[in-house]
Amino acid sequence: MNLFPVVMAGGSGTRFWPLSRRARPKQFLPLASERPLIVETVNRLAGLATLKETFVVCGKAHAAPVRKLVKGLPAGNIIVEPAARNTAPAIGLATLHVARKDPHGVVAALPSDAFVKDAEGFRRDLEAAAALAMEGYIVTVGIKPSRPETGYGYIRRGEKLGAGYRVAAFVEKPDLPTARMYVSSPEYLWNGGIFVFRCDVMQLALARHMPDLWAGLSKLGKLIGKKGYASALEKIFPRLPATSIDYGVAEKAENIAVVPGDFGWSDVGSFAAIPDVRRADDAGNVVTGKNALVIDSEGCVVVSDKRLISVVGMKDTIVVDSGDALLILPKDKAQDVRKVVEALKQGKLEKFL
Amino acid sequence: MNLFPVVMAGGSGTRFWPLSRRARPKQFLPLASERPLIVETVNRLAGLATLKETFVVCGKAHAAPVRKLVKGLPAGNIIVEPAARNTAPAIGLATLHVARKDPHGVVAALPSDAFVKDAEGFRRDLEAAAALAMEGYIVTVGIKPSRPETGYGYIRRGEKLGAGYRVAAFVEKPDLPTARMYVSSPEYLWNGGIFVFRCDVMQLALARHMPDLWAGLSKLGKLIGKKGYASALEKIFPRLPATSIDYGVAEKAENIAVVPGDFGWSDVGSFAAIPDVRRADDAGNVVTGKNALVIDSEGCVVVSDKRLISVVGMKDTIVVDSGDALLILPKDKAQDVRKVVEALKQGKLEKFL
Repeated sequence: MNLFPVVMAGGSGTRFWPLSRRARPKQFLPLASERPLIVETVNRLAGLATLKETFVVCGKAHAAPVRKLVKGLPAGNIIVEPAARNTAPAIGLATLHVARKDPHGVVAALPSDAFVKDAEGFRRDLEAAAALAMEGYIVTVGIKPSRPETGYGYIRRGEKLGAGYRVAAFVEKPDLPTARMYVSSPEYLWNGGIFVFRCDVMQLALARHMPDLWAGLSKLGKLIGKKGYASALEKIFPRLPATSIDYGVAEKAENIAVVPGDFGWSDVGSFAAIPDVRRADDAGNVVTGKNALVIDSEGCVVVSDKRLISVVGMKDTIVVDSGDALLILPKDKAQDVRKVVEALKQGKLEKFL
Repeated sequence: MNLFPVVMAGGSGTRFWPLSRRARPKQFLPLASERPLIVETVNRLAGLATLKETFVVCGKAHAAPVRKLVKGLPAGNIIVEPAARNTAPAIGLATLHVARKDPHGVVAALPSDAFVKDAEGFRRDLEAAAALAMEGYIVTVGIKPSRPETGYGYIRRGEKLGAGYRVAAFVEKPDLPTARMYVSSPEYLWNGGIFVFRCDVMQLALARHMPDLWAGLSKLGKLIGKKGYASALEKIFPRLPATSIDYGVAEKAENIAVVPGDFGWSDVGSFAAIPDVRRADDAGNVVTGKNALVIDSEGCVVVSDKRLISVVGMKDTIVVDSGDALLILPKDKAQDVRKVVEALKQGKLEKFL
């Protein structure tokens, strides 16, 4: 079996502003360690595949940083999206590239910006998913929930199927009581956005469930590696339906399976998640960078840059210095970063975005 | 009557770190307006005295900034202390300088770093104090308390005396119940460190109550304006007893009077006092500098520098950017700035002091 990891690096979020910027979205930030999330993601695949088999899908502006950060990745393995069109077009495009190497190759499409604590467990579960994928299933790795999270979608597993289960249903983000019920049941798993499938199986599923998308992709497939591909991509890709693989394929196909995964996963959704993925001191403070002085404080997340940051007597507060901008907000309001981003847009301070 | 304001600018506090530094103590900071406190203090005297009659006492390192900031002050009116020896030596030294112009001149010794809301009321009360001083009293202007402050000394007034009262007693910083009692009584006033007296009266009081101090000062008095003064000052001044005028003279002398003042006074004791001296927005935030974005926040003090500071969802928090350093702490722990200063000393980060 040939396994081809496809690292999805098309994200452009603002939840880590002021660290994340248009030119440097979350996956390029060293949020969970001293290395950028995307580098950790690629490193985590060592043993499953070499860099020759590894692909990265990203936006135009991010091809250069990907090349710089993911050392040893062949230039041809960076798949550039001319526009961000959600995950179904990105995965579809990736299958065209992988199919040139092996039309029946197994793709493991992964977010580039998630955290995994137990890399060995992760690889084991991915291998189990790949084995099911070989049999013709589109396999998602469902994360065993560790808390009643209301911000994630869930997967309800059905009947047993090899190392996994058939998917009974994809479930929308629940309210808190429902999420509590899900956590206590072994039947519910988080949807972590990890999909494993054979190239030909996914292409068939796209042709069946997303014919418009497939029409565009198959035109590109005929041109790939030839003159005219780049200009066709520029023309066709931005008009493909901007649909997620979950909605466009996974929720519709019948050959969907799930392999439960339990490897200390986090989507690192906001600064408030930093204590889940970084070591905290005895008072629960996570301090990164060398120039922070944290005194009489508890549960804070402090990201220092070159300047000295002194935090005294604060509780559960996020303080982030990005050099040219600074953010201070309570940990339980970490999502409100978007209010700053909104204000910057309206205040014509877009240079800070 | 000749009135000679003596602005006491010897302070070197750290309660406004990181804005205040060794080279730029509080009095040089634009804390209550866009102008440094010392400039506001001198401007407030307009009408009472000209700059020719105005003196500033300060440390060696601060003579240059005083000259730069207090435009029009004659160079000879900057009285440099070779070492900080508290207020009694500073005031004693000032009387030597003033006496050269008028041995019976009335000195108004004032802190350089206090805030006054009603400048006209302030001048009126100072004139009343000067009138009593002419009669031979050492007069302090006692501030009518506006809250049960436990951080100030109080003055208990005695029998009526012209526009003021005899001082019955100087009272130590009270506990909260006592402070509450003081506020509700008209007999208690805050000691704001303002003293008004005739030169000759103060010199006599120093000779009587602080003979050691006076011995050194009278040597200097003989040399003042002559060759040898500078080197004698260097030798004698640093050895003078480091005593406050309150303890050394005011608490001991019998000819002490107090004139009540009610002009919106604040000693601007810490960042927490900024809302008392600056206009706050509707949510009670005081924001200075142009680069702050304050969203969903209440009661915060935000001092921005060149970088963008974004504060979201915070309450009663102080955020200060001084360019090379940053401070974040709760308003009710404003005094804990000293913990940072302590940590900087111990961490060999003295360049930040």
